[in-house]
Amino acid sequence: MRCEVVAIGTELLLGQIVDTNSSWIGEQLAVFGIDSHFQTKVGDNFDRMEFSIRQALGRSDAVICCGGLGPTQDDITRDVIAHIMGVELARDEVIVDKIREMFESRGRVMTDNNRRQADIPVGAQPIPHMPGTAPGLHCPVGDKVIYAVPGVPYEMREMLEAFILPDLQQRSGQTAVIRSRTLRTWGDSESGLAEKLGDRIEHLDGIGNPTLAFLASGIEGIKVRITAKSEDEETAAQILAAEEKFLRNLLGDIVFGIDEETMETVVLDQLRRRGMTLAVAESLTGGVMSSRLSEIDRNLNVFKGAIVSAGYVEASVGEDRAIAAAHHAKETYGTDVGVAAVLPDPSEGQRRGTVYLGIILRGVEYSEHVALPGDRNRLRNYAVISVMNFLRRLLS
Amino acid sequence: MRCEVVAIGTELLLGQIVDTNSSWIGEQLAVFGIDSHFQTKVGDNFDRMEFSIRQALGRSDAVICCGGLGPTQDDITRDVIAHIMGVELARDEVIVDKIREMFESRGRVMTDNNRRQADIPVGAQPIPHMPGTAPGLHCPVGDKVIYAVPGVPYEMREMLEAFILPDLQQRSGQTAVIRSRTLRTWGDSESGLAEKLGDRIEHLDGIGNPTLAFLASGIEGIKVRITAKSEDEETAAQILAAEEKFLRNLLGDIVFGIDEETMETVVLDQLRRRGMTLAVAESLTGGVMSSRLSEIDRNLNVFKGAIVSAGYVEASVGEDRAIAAAHHAKETYGTDVGVAAVLPDPSEGQRRGTVYLGIILRGVEYSEHVALPGDRNRLRNYAVISVMNFLRRLLS
Repeated sequence: MRCEVVAIGTELLLGQIVDTNSSWIGEQLAVFGIDSHFQTKVGDNFDRMEFSIRQALGRSDAVICCGGLGPTQDDITRDVIAHIMGVELARDEVIVDKIREMFESRGRVMTDNNRRQADIPVGAQPIPHMPGTAPGLHCPVGDKVIYAVPGVPYEMREMLEAFILPDLQQRSGQTAVIRSRTLRTWGDSESGLAEKLGDRIEHLDGIGNPTLAFLASGIEGIKVRITAKSEDEETAAQILAAEEKFLRNLLGDIVFGIDEETMETVVLDQLRRRGMTLAVAESLTGGVMSSRLSEIDRNLNVFKGAIVSAGYVEASVGEDRAIAAAHHAKETYGTDVGVAAVLPDPSEGQRRGTVYLGIILRGVEYSEHVALPGDRNRLRNYAVISVMNFLRRLLS
Repeated sequence: MRCEVVAIGTELLLGQIVDTNSSWIGEQLAVFGIDSHFQTKVGDNFDRMEFSIRQALGRSDAVICCGGLGPTQDDITRDVIAHIMGVELARDEVIVDKIREMFESRGRVMTDNNRRQADIPVGAQPIPHMPGTAPGLHCPVGDKVIYAVPGVPYEMREMLEAFILPDLQQRSGQTAVIRSRTLRTWGDSESGLAEKLGDRIEHLDGIGNPTLAFLASGIEGIKVRITAKSEDEETAAQILAAEEKFLRNLLGDIVFGIDEETMETVVLDQLRRRGMTLAVAESLTGGVMSSRLSEIDRNLNVFKGAIVSAGYVEASVGEDRAIAAAHHAKETYGTDVGVAAVLPDPSEGQRRGTVYLGIILRGVEYSEHVALPGDRNRLRNYAVISVMNFLRRLLS
């Protein structure tokens, strides 16, 4: 079973809106075990829309058209689909009434333009779920199907979840379940990881299930995604668990979490479990560490506070600079742990990208220096994840 | 002149990464007056990549392939392009040396995998600008051209700006100079702006030059882009300047800057010119304000520091909470100005999204409250730009 997404709208091609809809739909299709090999963006142009939808329908079993269902003259998805089906549009008076009611419930008057949204290709059905004023369309074409949904994300999502995905799974007749799990890593390069995993990838390629993929995520490290295909949830979960265990053994300490876990969530969890509190000193990192920690620990229960200032490192050189800063933060907020990542003093003549990391934990001073790449902004983020990873290893 | 983007990577189809690159490239192409009718996303699959690139090349003059140039087994863009060109790959030892140097400068060793990145289709050229370890490719195919750039956004952008866009313009044979300027606004809705600018847009549509476009940019406000087309730099600059002046008169105080200016650069410049220093208190904003200010004022010359803590607002209610916090920051760092954006105390029963803004400036306390939309992360960013905008208006 294959399904393609065709995202419609000149504003997408012009970069005025980022097409997040296709990504979201792609993710849902994967979860439902439906292959999706291409996604296309096309402008509000009849011929090019017809071309893209016909091509998608030619090589896939189902097409989801996203956008172009609104009330303006630009919105011609209905017309193009009717043309492809070889039918006329017919106004659905039940839908007209629904649209009128929606306008009236908001204290507004339905304009004539809005009636166009009730035009349905003959032989197609409006999708029963209609959170906005544009109905979705369910259009059988031989043994294939075209769905059309509005480009408004929440309307699109509701129609997908309530109608299209269940309909696709029923059509597919298959019960295969695809599940994935992502190992989050920090501390090795993409090529280093590729070499460590080369044999395993080759082995899995022979078996075909599960599969592995790398996702280089820059300042968030490198992700290794395991994807398992199975008859049922339980077997898929077993395959994922077994592969995760294998990879953790192979990769060791560089795996810091899975899926939605970040370095911050992992470290804050470690501290919370130990009943410890944290304060940080930020000169180089200038608030980046705080903003990342406070985004997770919103009420500042574990992460108690930060000093953003350049003043406290001025007197020292070498890794002592980071230790002094970490002490300063720890003492200011009376926390269990103090953390800092600081630049060398210019007089030290250290290579560009050198960063000192300092941690005060259980009365012990820990420090190290790292060589980090990138412009200033990336350097700051790398420094944050490096010192958080340093703390993670000390706590584990 | 037509150019298509083919974004490559199974992770894009699976929705694990949102394809922002195509949007950005689409925006640049539009500014340069190059038509872009389709954008395609395709997975890391040889046959489907070949199909997509060939199709794009068939109906356009140029294709930009984005992604699949890394060192892993998945990365086969080089191979597919060589196949389409009907040539072999040849290793470029100059590029191998460059990659090795990059690794060594970071104190790391280049693995064998990384050498693959130096494989160039015979007849193609590496793009001279190489901010990462993967060179871009410039591949003539008859009188058309394929460019390949890495999926890493900053690498992609540098290659586009420094090489591909100028090369495309030269190829297009057009001598017209296309320049754009973006007015940055904060404080009006998209529909409000559209109403204010409606007549002007209609007028310019009649003339055809310059043109205006809206770019709603969420937490960064709404941008109004002016694009001028002209025979020479000087005339283009005149058109932009005249239109900027017209729009500034029309829109007034909501225009806070142009192009790369952000609210932070504008406010820091205002303070610097007045010889004033700034400190901020962050509870709600938890380091977001500091990280944005310190990204610009790296050595903390104007922005002297921040206190990230929830402690200092506990005793007060209403806008006094923001005033107390602003005083605390100002006194801690001995600065001229103190700034804070804080949440109401839960006991106040304020509506969700209410944020108090407080500023101490020239011995005077200024405060106001705003109602901001969005989840916690957007709320924090909206709070930062709101309080910075408050300070900007007080200083101007």
